[in-house]
Amino acid sequence: MLWTKTFIPTLKEAPQEADSISHKLLLRAGLMRMLMSGVYTYLPLGLRVLNNIENIIRQEMDSSGAAELLLPALQPLELWLKTGRDKDLGETMIRFTDRRGRKICLGPTHEEVITDLVKGHVSSYKQLPLVLYQIQTKFRDELRPRFGPVRACEFVMKDAYSFDRDQEGLEKNYKIMLAAYNRIFGRMGLDFLVVEADAGVMGGSVSHEFMVPTESGEDVVLACPKCHCALPYKEEVADKKLCPKCNEALVVTNTVEIGHIFQLGTKYSSSLGANFLDASGKLQPIIMGCYGIGVSRLISAVIEQNHDDAGIIWPDEVSPYRVIVVPLDITDEKISGCAHAVYQELNNAGVQALLDDRDERAGVKFKDADLLGIPLEIIIGKEFLKTGNLELKFRRENKKITGDKEDILKHIR
Amino acid sequence: MLWTKTFIPTLKEAPQEADSISHKLLLRAGLMRMLMSGVYTYLPLGLRVLNNIENIIRQEMDSSGAAELLLPALQPLELWLKTGRDKDLGETMIRFTDRRGRKICLGPTHEEVITDLVKGHVSSYKQLPLVLYQIQTKFRDELRPRFGPVRACEFVMKDAYSFDRDQEGLEKNYKIMLAAYNRIFGRMGLDFLVVEADAGVMGGSVSHEFMVPTESGEDVVLACPKCHCALPYKEEVADKKLCPKCNEALVVTNTVEIGHIFQLGTKYSSSLGANFLDASGKLQPIIMGCYGIGVSRLISAVIEQNHDDAGIIWPDEVSPYRVIVVPLDITDEKISGCAHAVYQELNNAGVQALLDDRDERAGVKFKDADLLGIPLEIIIGKEFLKTGNLELKFRRENKKITGDKEDILKHIR
Repeated sequence: MLWTKTFIPTLKEAPQEADSISHKLLLRAGLMRMLMSGVYTYLPLGLRVLNNIENIIRQEMDSSGAAELLLPALQPLELWLKTGRDKDLGETMIRFTDRRGRKICLGPTHEEVITDLVKGHVSSYKQLPLVLYQIQTKFRDELRPRFGPVRACEFVMKDAYSFDRDQEGLEKNYKIMLAAYNRIFGRMGLDFLVVEADAGVMGGSVSHEFMVPTESGEDVVLACPKCHCALPYKEEVADKKLCPKCNEALVVTNTVEIGHIFQLGTKYSSSLGANFLDASGKLQPIIMGCYGIGVSRLISAVIEQNHDDAGIIWPDEVSPYRVIVVPLDITDEKISGCAHAVYQELNNAGVQALLDDRDERAGVKFKDADLLGIPLEIIIGKEFLKTGNLELKFRRENKKITGDKEDILKHIR
Repeated sequence: MLWTKTFIPTLKEAPQEADSISHKLLLRAGLMRMLMSGVYTYLPLGLRVLNNIENIIRQEMDSSGAAELLLPALQPLELWLKTGRDKDLGETMIRFTDRRGRKICLGPTHEEVITDLVKGHVSSYKQLPLVLYQIQTKFRDELRPRFGPVRACEFVMKDAYSFDRDQEGLEKNYKIMLAAYNRIFGRMGLDFLVVEADAGVMGGSVSHEFMVPTESGEDVVLACPKCHCALPYKEEVADKKLCPKCNEALVVTNTVEIGHIFQLGTKYSSSLGANFLDASGKLQPIIMGCYGIGVSRLISAVIEQNHDDAGIIWPDEVSPYRVIVVPLDITDEKISGCAHAVYQELNNAGVQALLDDRDERAGVKFKDADLLGIPLEIIIGKEFLKTGNLELKFRRENKKITGDKEDILKHIR
């Protein structure tokens, strides 16, 4: 992509609204813009990061045997009355009456809708197990939106649902998802904790939370600095608590929740009547699990853990581009010609590249390249005019190597 | 994908709600399900078709120099008051007040939001032209939803917006988009008409509509049966009208609108104050165009034009899978072994394949394969047990060839 053909409005200073490091960098690097408090536009770079995160999730969900579908945002309130969760969610759930008088809500989650769907089509144990998931936009009337996409009114989630004949099947699917989540967050370069947690409003018993330690995190957990074990924070015991695995003193740690998985049991299938005939011909409620990931807030979580004073440092699989090509004087024909040739060869080799073809000063381009945080920067400047050599800068290591065009391209490929 | 691992609830009879051929086939082939009138779930097969359509659009938009972003569904009503379009859209636009008292609407389109975004970041002629697009979910309080995704309350659109210095730039971008639209709909295997139309509520002057002739279409146009020229239908002149290009008598034709492009001019930039400094330092409103495609209703349009009595017949680029493998008796070890081997080899060759691994009667499997409409069916049955040969059926041509496994796989690759 050419910088001048896309839309990357970088900023020297973060707008006043920014209230965390990731929020500031999201805005400064031109990834997102606020439309109103809690509601954000994904600019082209931000959308590329979102898509990369979604694709990692999709790959790991698909290879775990889950099938993707897409449920609507508009939901009949009627379904929520049946499970009683309209009260649990209260004013957080956006509701309205349409002009035909239908009571509708904007889905903050989809247990009701998917249980109702499966109810209509699964009637025998032979059709189970079944694991379905979606990556979809959710809505919440958030009273105090904060930290950009971390606590927002409109956000993207991955929600998966498992349907089983019995507890044994549920536990099997639960383990598969737990393993998939570890792979997903690992591929995103995240340092995360897995906390055995309360199931709360979701119903059910067993549940695990995936938490990313960050300064601005609003969820407090007790983390073991030695073995990465973590427990829910409970004020009365926090001071004396030792790690149940290695006996090290636990540390009170601020975190952001990025995923949460639940063994639901029959809470939804019972109240919505999603039953199946078991092998002996007996009618049973389907045993369910649900598995959520906060997709859009992962952008923030990754930035919180991957940045320095100059800007973002994207992990490879999440980065909007793999390489940024930075010609320092685009009006110089030799430099511009080399930059376009390098860019073309990267495209031909299937390497996602961004060419900063703006007519801007070297200082602006250097600063913007570091701010954007693309792992590899190819710099074509004075050195090139003198010796024909380019520079390849590794953003994370802040190291440079020098070589001619072929050397540098070979290194990248 | 294995049939038993995904969710394809085919139906022998269409539910009562189905009111057009495509709507019936969408439901019968297990592509979509109604949650409530005008609101649909995309089941796994339907989502694959939707993704294919989106990817065709994405490829052609990207190669036309447009940059993708993602705007929010939640919009401040305030922006609509500035352009006066809150009145134009009236009750069609879903509105609510959140608990902080903000007046919010669910975006039925995004001219206001994108103009406001660009206004904040474009100030000089040097930053123009710019073409931005998104593929996003829109909402309408539709009084009489019909034909499944054709007239729905929640639907997917591609909306693009061009920003230019002058009318000449707008006309250039408009031509590029017109050409891209022709490529997009051509790749989807559609027979479509291009109608020069009124701009109506969108403002501006020049506009073109892309229409697909179908029996159930609610938009009437005058089409030339000879040269594919088309005009908007006007009752008073319809009887006598001749084609302006070839003088043939025009025919009153029912169609569905799948795309609409507009030269907006300065309607939105003027009312929202999106100005730029031109080369002479004078402040000017940005000249805009907008370019819409009804993404989800394209699924219906394609089916309307591509089906027979047995079911859907997908064009190659839109089909949820390229091949369906149909072992006629999955309990037979030889047949099952061969089916899985064929399926594996297709996967290895990068051919998207569905394996019908259900324990169902041959009749059910034949009927479902034809109903699903995947272009190639590999049938492994009695013939295979006798001679070792498989059958390859071409769904559209309704022709079969016979050969051993290697012959058939070679043919597909």
